[in-house]
Amino acid sequence: MNEFEAIRAFFDWPTTHTELGVGDDAALCAVPDGQLLAISSDMLVAGRHFFADVDPESLGHKALAVNLSDMAAMGATPRQFTLALALPTMDTDWLTRFAKGLRRTASTFQCDLVGGDTTAGPLNISITIMGEVAKGQALKRSGAKVGDDLYVTGALGAARLGLWYRTQRLRHALPQASAAAAIQAMDWPVPRVALGLALRGVASAAMDLSDGLAGDVRHMAKASQCHAEVHLSDVPVAPCVLQAQGINPALFATQGGDDYELLFAASPEQRDCIQTISTTLAIPITRIGTMRAAVAGADVSFVSPDGRDISDALQGFDHFASDPVQQASAP
Amino acid sequence: MNEFEAIRAFFDWPTTHTELGVGDDAALCAVPDGQLLAISSDMLVAGRHFFADVDPESLGHKALAVNLSDMAAMGATPRQFTLALALPTMDTDWLTRFAKGLRRTASTFQCDLVGGDTTAGPLNISITIMGEVAKGQALKRSGAKVGDDLYVTGALGAARLGLWYRTQRLRHALPQASAAAAIQAMDWPVPRVALGLALRGVASAAMDLSDGLAGDVRHMAKASQCHAEVHLSDVPVAPCVLQAQGINPALFATQGGDDYELLFAASPEQRDCIQTISTTLAIPITRIGTMRAAVAGADVSFVSPDGRDISDALQGFDHFASDPVQQASAP
Repeated sequence: MNEFEAIRAFFDWPTTHTELGVGDDAALCAVPDGQLLAISSDMLVAGRHFFADVDPESLGHKALAVNLSDMAAMGATPRQFTLALALPTMDTDWLTRFAKGLRRTASTFQCDLVGGDTTAGPLNISITIMGEVAKGQALKRSGAKVGDDLYVTGALGAARLGLWYRTQRLRHALPQASAAAAIQAMDWPVPRVALGLALRGVASAAMDLSDGLAGDVRHMAKASQCHAEVHLSDVPVAPCVLQAQGINPALFATQGGDDYELLFAASPEQRDCIQTISTTLAIPITRIGTMRAAVAGADVSFVSPDGRDISDALQGFDHFASDPVQQASAP
Repeated sequence: MNEFEAIRAFFDWPTTHTELGVGDDAALCAVPDGQLLAISSDMLVAGRHFFADVDPESLGHKALAVNLSDMAAMGATPRQFTLALALPTMDTDWLTRFAKGLRRTASTFQCDLVGGDTTAGPLNISITIMGEVAKGQALKRSGAKVGDDLYVTGALGAARLGLWYRTQRLRHALPQASAAAAIQAMDWPVPRVALGLALRGVASAAMDLSDGLAGDVRHMAKASQCHAEVHLSDVPVAPCVLQAQGINPALFATQGGDDYELLFAASPEQRDCIQTISTTLAIPITRIGTMRAAVAGADVSFVSPDGRDISDALQGFDHFASDPVQQASAP
């Protein structure tokens, strides 16, 4: 099977809202008047973002889910994506399963696969996603105001626990149900697309948590020229993380990557509305802090239950970090 | 330097026609009413599409140029691109030069870098490009009609000769000027963007030549449900290929990849118009054959000067091919 046959066999799916899909030099899509195009790219590298022997079906899902999460974070409706794929060998069994996971998630979120590239090379999955958001409605990182509440969706730390479990970094045994939940969170993240759409006109700023709350909240604070004050005891921690022994659950959860929950800011006037959204979508939304006036040299304070600022001990994930703790948190 | 600092240092350039560029969860772009969005992705892998020790400046250029070539092939105006980059190490000297080459070409073609991803991993460059083309004006592969002329721009085979020269596959010495021209063609391809725009309303079908004329013309014939008849003696061969000893220039040129010239079909009524475009843009355009009625089991005939059909001996480049000749034609 050559690359053209592979594309036809595995990735030439019917599109539902695209003028021209896979097979030409470029795809063609319409963007309705009054809408902006939202664009984001994520690259997943074997041995770095996933284990080379991971279930290909979950990998197909996750590669798209992390991009869908970026659409959610902008309040955009996902529309199309391209897939550039480097494969060590033309393994049709692997491709069948990868395509199955990818296609199901694409179908769930009505996101058309419109093109891409397939080549030989070290396993690498690069997806670019496109969505639509009405002009003036996008949820930027930069829109938070002093006095805004800070929220996160869902609960944090489960995917990081899955990674630690799989790499045998945990010093204590994990209950079986917790291990399963952690692995599930790591391999099958759920992008908060409906929630992102619901937050348009409600949130003043939003982003998704991919590198850990501790680092990501700094990005929002900096972009919004505010100082984020986060109460560590209010950070929602995934139940499986609470079950783990030998770690500090709240500290562990704020430093994990791969959560794909949303972090957002909103005026206190929106509290009732946010409660309604949480109830309607059955997604927990937790207020974790407040946007304060900018402070020179510090974008964020993480306040511990005893009132101390422990921000210096917390960092997000950096793919090039040389600190061994950070390195170890990548596969 | 971490990944966020690297993005700021090397890839956070001012945009000229983009609502929101690098730095948020997604970029935001407007697509004018009446225009379709054209989208294409290309992934370049070290050791496969380029040598790992290639001049990073030319690599930055080429990574974007091959995507610009896809816009040219659709008759689309390039507007934005995203860059996903996997790097073995955070080599700031390499990044400086890569970004320099990329930025100059982006600026030349007024194509805004709007986002992407930077991660550690085996060297891999994945670019997704977006452009605009008025509804109904895109140059698809599928539009060729029986009786249309077939054309190629420029001359073919130089980039392939550069590859053979660099990998020491040539059995005879190449004149120094020819070697320089071949390497130039391989490392610094010129996307035919202005020509693609000029062909809107003139060409019935178009595509760019990235995998070699022999294979690419099959794709157009198949998409257009025609049979392409190509006269081998009419195929324009790059002067440096004509200088090379020990190869058949025309056969060599039709099987080379990386030409990034345009292949297009047009009604014979357009001959004068095409001549004018060629003169105006100072780009040679050569008529190489004709679209015939579809023939079962054969998408293309390559007719040799003595009238024989030598199609079976010709193939385009396939990244997964196991034929050693094909494999050897990749770096």
